[in-house]
Amino acid sequence: MVGTTYKSVGKRTKRIDSPPKLTGGERFTADLRPPGLLFSSIVGSTYGHAEILGVDSSAALEIPGVVAVLTQDSLAIAKDENGNPVAKLLAGDRAVHVGQPIALVLAETAVAAQDGADAVVIDYRELPVVTVLTEALDPTSPQVNADIRGDFEDEAAIHNADAASSTTEKKDLPVNVSNTAEFDRGDIEKGFAEADAIVELSLKSERVHQGYIETQVCMAVPDMTNRITVHTSTQAAFHVRGKVADAIGIPRANVTVVPMPVGGGFGGKFGLIEPMVAAAAMAVDRPVLVQYTRSDDLLAGNPAPDAEIRVKLGAKNDGTITALDADLLFDAGATPGSPLGIAAILLGGYYKFPNLKIRGSEVMTHRASGGAYRAPGAQQATFAIESAMDELATKLGLDPMEFRLQNCVEEGDLRPNGGAWPRIGMRESLEALKRHPLWANRPQNPEPGTGIGIAVGGWPGAVEPATAVCRLDEDGKLTVVLGTSDLNGTNTSFAMVAAETLGLDADEVRVTTADTSSAPQSPGAGGSKITYSVAPAVRRAAEDALEQIKNIAAEHLEASAEDLEVADGMVRVKGVPGSGMSLQEVAALTLTSSNTHGPVHGRGSASLTQSSPGFAAHLAEVKVDELTGEVQVTRYVATQDVGFAINPAAVEGQIHGGVAQGIGWALYEGQTFDADGGPMASSLMDYALPRATMIPNIDVVLVEVASEDGAFGSKGVGEPPAIPGAAAIANAIKNATGGRVTSLPIRSSDVLSLISGT
Amino acid sequence: MVGTTYKSVGKRTKRIDSPPKLTGGERFTADLRPPGLLFSSIVGSTYGHAEILGVDSSAALEIPGVVAVLTQDSLAIAKDENGNPVAKLLAGDRAVHVGQPIALVLAETAVAAQDGADAVVIDYRELPVVTVLTEALDPTSPQVNADIRGDFEDEAAIHNADAASSTTEKKDLPVNVSNTAEFDRGDIEKGFAEADAIVELSLKSERVHQGYIETQVCMAVPDMTNRITVHTSTQAAFHVRGKVADAIGIPRANVTVVPMPVGGGFGGKFGLIEPMVAAAAMAVDRPVLVQYTRSDDLLAGNPAPDAEIRVKLGAKNDGTITALDADLLFDAGATPGSPLGIAAILLGGYYKFPNLKIRGSEVMTHRASGGAYRAPGAQQATFAIESAMDELATKLGLDPMEFRLQNCVEEGDLRPNGGAWPRIGMRESLEALKRHPLWANRPQNPEPGTGIGIAVGGWPGAVEPATAVCRLDEDGKLTVVLGTSDLNGTNTSFAMVAAETLGLDADEVRVTTADTSSAPQSPGAGGSKITYSVAPAVRRAAEDALEQIKNIAAEHLEASAEDLEVADGMVRVKGVPGSGMSLQEVAALTLTSSNTHGPVHGRGSASLTQSSPGFAAHLAEVKVDELTGEVQVTRYVATQDVGFAINPAAVEGQIHGGVAQGIGWALYEGQTFDADGGPMASSLMDYALPRATMIPNIDVVLVEVASEDGAFGSKGVGEPPAIPGAAAIANAIKNATGGRVTSLPIRSSDVLSLISGT
Repeated sequence: MVGTTYKSVGKRTKRIDSPPKLTGGERFTADLRPPGLLFSSIVGSTYGHAEILGVDSSAALEIPGVVAVLTQDSLAIAKDENGNPVAKLLAGDRAVHVGQPIALVLAETAVAAQDGADAVVIDYRELPVVTVLTEALDPTSPQVNADIRGDFEDEAAIHNADAASSTTEKKDLPVNVSNTAEFDRGDIEKGFAEADAIVELSLKSERVHQGYIETQVCMAVPDMTNRITVHTSTQAAFHVRGKVADAIGIPRANVTVVPMPVGGGFGGKFGLIEPMVAAAAMAVDRPVLVQYTRSDDLLAGNPAPDAEIRVKLGAKNDGTITALDADLLFDAGATPGSPLGIAAILLGGYYKFPNLKIRGSEVMTHRASGGAYRAPGAQQATFAIESAMDELATKLGLDPMEFRLQNCVEEGDLRPNGGAWPRIGMRESLEALKRHPLWANRPQNPEPGTGIGIAVGGWPGAVEPATAVCRLDEDGKLTVVLGTSDLNGTNTSFAMVAAETLGLDADEVRVTTADTSSAPQSPGAGGSKITYSVAPAVRRAAEDALEQIKNIAAEHLEASAEDLEVADGMVRVKGVPGSGMSLQEVAALTLTSSNTHGPVHGRGSASLTQSSPGFAAHLAEVKVDELTGEVQVTRYVATQDVGFAINPAAVEGQIHGGVAQGIGWALYEGQTFDADGGPMASSLMDYALPRATMIPNIDVVLVEVASEDGAFGSKGVGEPPAIPGAAAIANAIKNATGGRVTSLPIRSSDVLSLISGT
Repeated sequence: MVGTTYKSVGKRTKRIDSPPKLTGGERFTADLRPPGLLFSSIVGSTYGHAEILGVDSSAALEIPGVVAVLTQDSLAIAKDENGNPVAKLLAGDRAVHVGQPIALVLAETAVAAQDGADAVVIDYRELPVVTVLTEALDPTSPQVNADIRGDFEDEAAIHNADAASSTTEKKDLPVNVSNTAEFDRGDIEKGFAEADAIVELSLKSERVHQGYIETQVCMAVPDMTNRITVHTSTQAAFHVRGKVADAIGIPRANVTVVPMPVGGGFGGKFGLIEPMVAAAAMAVDRPVLVQYTRSDDLLAGNPAPDAEIRVKLGAKNDGTITALDADLLFDAGATPGSPLGIAAILLGGYYKFPNLKIRGSEVMTHRASGGAYRAPGAQQATFAIESAMDELATKLGLDPMEFRLQNCVEEGDLRPNGGAWPRIGMRESLEALKRHPLWANRPQNPEPGTGIGIAVGGWPGAVEPATAVCRLDEDGKLTVVLGTSDLNGTNTSFAMVAAETLGLDADEVRVTTADTSSAPQSPGAGGSKITYSVAPAVRRAAEDALEQIKNIAAEHLEASAEDLEVADGMVRVKGVPGSGMSLQEVAALTLTSSNTHGPVHGRGSASLTQSSPGFAAHLAEVKVDELTGEVQVTRYVATQDVGFAINPAAVEGQIHGGVAQGIGWALYEGQTFDADGGPMASSLMDYALPRATMIPNIDVVLVEVASEDGAFGSKGVGEPPAIPGAAAIANAIKNATGGRVTSLPIRSSDVLSLISGT
């Protein structure tokens, strides 16, 4: 599709959301100051597991400015038929992880709220904890969360289309095992028997914080008539609307969610604190602002889960893979839910495994509940399978690129869950990487301490129904209205799609994200699905508007609508350049009472039933300091099949960000815990995010294997670039040092152990 | 149409906007507090006409908290090709009326802004004024406004469909005459020659303030990227958007107007201060709130203009009217624009005048520019013609009701501008009044000092294209999105219209007023056109949604869409009560990725080309205190042809309000000026609004002569009830005292003069 002569799509276009962000003019949730606003501070549990015997707020309430100290009992939560609250928004009588919010102090100023929180006294009875994954498998381990067991909402379907088929039925499981996965194909024993070489690795990865600049933040304004407006930094306004309405027990129409500009989401902002904030605001009948401190976010956010994966892989000397055997153990934290299923599918889904056996368990531990992080489950699974692939290639004396190309899946190949891959570009991404000079011209004898590694990553993608509307304005320009959050330039892409359809320049199209009281139904921005799911709706809306425009112009020009075309802001009779009228003239006609058509207003609904999986292939070049074990990524290549890059600049930006996050996963980021479940890091002084100097220049190569349903062939591009980083870097370290790292993040001490052989 | 078995429309329904307003929960523009907000105070001209030699803001800027003192030169106003500002938003180098804003003081607090305004020193050179209408006709009178002569936007078309045809071409006019009107029919001299009786009256009416509870208020937030969000109490968001964009010279898409809840508009809020507030906010790059004090509003608002009308009327003994001769003189204030044209048309439009001659002039004076007030021009014209009709009936010894019925216009009769009345209900309204016991049983010999008077009032109505969209929500309820301000329960009516179409209850439909960044194109709420213009769009949108719902259900139910019906929240196979699926189930289907339809989203555009004139007939019973001349209205009957009352409760509310305002016009309200142009009233201590005790019980009789195009036969109902009051009361005073009052408001002193014959 590259080179097709589109007017707007396919061209590098500046993001329309950049100016306010670059100038500091953007207003975020925490900037809002409605009259009567109360600030807040959270009192979190000191213990990983404890009975809460009492909350003494008397000293806090003495502090000038403190208005209320709310607990689970005093929040405005809907009751079920038994009179029990339908949601646990604060800890209530039992805390199940360190930092779990027990009380919310509301005050006239932020400082008073903090002072108030410091003055709240909690009376605890400490209880035993389980914080180690393997210990949580033990049926005798302390039960983490009896309250909500088996009664949780599975949100995985928001992020990937495979979720529904990914896990097995609940059986009689150990007390802290909240989910399992089980996939089999062929005869695993026969497969390994046929293998000429077998490798087996046990790998670990730690919890990873989404690392958004803007922490979790929400501001809710009740209006005294059982209605509430929730301003929030969210990826999914309609989804949050449902969560809030259900938690406080009012009709959905009484909840308006205003999707505010998002200072980074990365999967972590599909609705975390909004029900609590809304229930607090309803309880005190005043606007309430809750902004997590970074410490709150590290203690009570919803990070990517830690995982332990064992993978055993066999292949013949000719490079044919014969068998895969893997166990996955995912942590859910204090409430059920993890990307176990998709991790299992991806682990067994990148290559043609004639025989496979995958078993997975999700366990609960006394730690904050895990959540989604850009490509949830994929990083952990990919680190495992792509490390093993590299080991096996080495063992067989095969080129790791050729070994992958020989076995990689293509259209029609099956995933472990039995679903066939649609048209995908894994091979094309690998081939693009193979052609890149950094690979093609790689030195046969690299300098000591340097190395190159490659890895792939894939994401099934997701779909969700979407509506778009568009309006022809009096100045002949178009306004597209959506309900999606513009996390990464998607509104710019939608402007380009509408512009293309109507023959306009992209800057003649404005895209508005409306709140849930007026927005068209819109998907959440996650799972690499926004552009893929919404662009077809935008295109239909623009086509609908185009038809209306032609009909109006046809009447005015005394021509047939079929003979008209729209280009450069003009409606013209085809082949008659001087003819026609401007879109501004059409708009003027429709906005005066002399016409019978009424204003031009296009609407398009779309519901794609097939997702568009995206694949990336990455190459990392590293330099390892032999004295310290420190790893520096020196060069990086990222190829990716994006179907069709509506806005190549934005797609490249997505890839840059994903690569940086992958480097964070590989080398820096990880939340560790002490034996009592206490997090070792509670600020960005302790929790390491990569800095600019840690990110090399990134060479991006876009591959365009058109999708069947996406607008102009486009696919989702958000997830894939965040996936292969850790494996590529681990493989580069192997190339540089000869040693295999098996845990994420890869700490200098681990590398030093490899080098020194200790 | 009364009695038709609709499910929703036609039933008395509580207004959905009432709860927040009744509980104090509503947030108005003045409640907004964005970060960095600047408060403001206006420095208005002390003189009616003066050269401004200098503005010394040094003392003001010394006051802590004062941030800026802006003048015309320092506002961010777009420049024309000659480098001159395209709009005069502050006085600049010449003030042309007392109270004209010269400087805007911006400060961190409201108090500092007020102190700052007090400290600004203006250096004036006083110039001669013209403030008397008849003097302004003199070609040698001091020119009011050389700057903008002949270069004004005629906004009358917003309020009535006749505007375009109402005035004659500009000719070589005296210096302060800014418009004229001229209508002729038949042979006026012959007409009067045929008359058996002739009456001639000269009448006056003073300026009237719209009297809204909430004064003019606007808060603008610039975002540093040449965009601005304007929160304002407005009747017409899209109209204001254009005004602001043009004044500050940015694209319309860069301006978002948020239509805030309106604390009363009555025609006065079609955009007055918004360009100034926006230009101030852009100049200082901070949010700016301007709320007029009541004094600002009385000095620099846009009141109904004062007028002088001479009317001469002749008729035969049998009651046949033979001729009308009238002169109208309307005041525009300091900038051109008045409802002269529509006043002339209505004056000659209520009755069958075989011969007529109407001449009108609009003059400029050194007073605040006039604006629209609910039924602009109609009160003045109706006071004149209906006083004259009563006099003539008396002179001929005819019953005033029969005299009107004999001559009243009907479908096909011509207005002075040559346009034929469409189907109207003037006769039906009069007949309803005739049947009312207060008229039918009126005493032949009323008690001394008591009297009954009747009068009619009509309004041509207006039309404007409109779009509505509606969305089926996950709970099976409907959200209708509009861009219209809900001034008086119109959103409730729209909910009822959508509910009717979809077989829902009205409370299952939510109506949202969106801002201009996402709203469908919508008319301004004025001229009795909102329900009439928008309801057909709402109906089409609901029908569009209905069709989508049926198609989806048809597929699911394996039935034909034509065989389905929607009722009580269910889609059913016609005649098979047990069959079907709920709208909630349909919604769930469309919001999951298993469907191919996408979400249900209806849209409807409508553009009616014919307005629906509305007529009212009023009866006032008065008691006149013979010692003081004080007039008390003791009983009141209002009949009105409303076409079809979608929500009878809301329509009656409209009529109650209109009657109260008519009583204000009749007896209390009037802005007078001293010889230098200084207003005599600058607060509601001086300017009299009727209090509750001054308003009698009002008997409302709804007449329903269905319109051809309005939804369910509905017509606009806003203007008519505010029209006949003054004439009905003047006629009642004549009935009570035998004396004819000829100026509004009717002051006790005038009545006393009548009684005493002095």
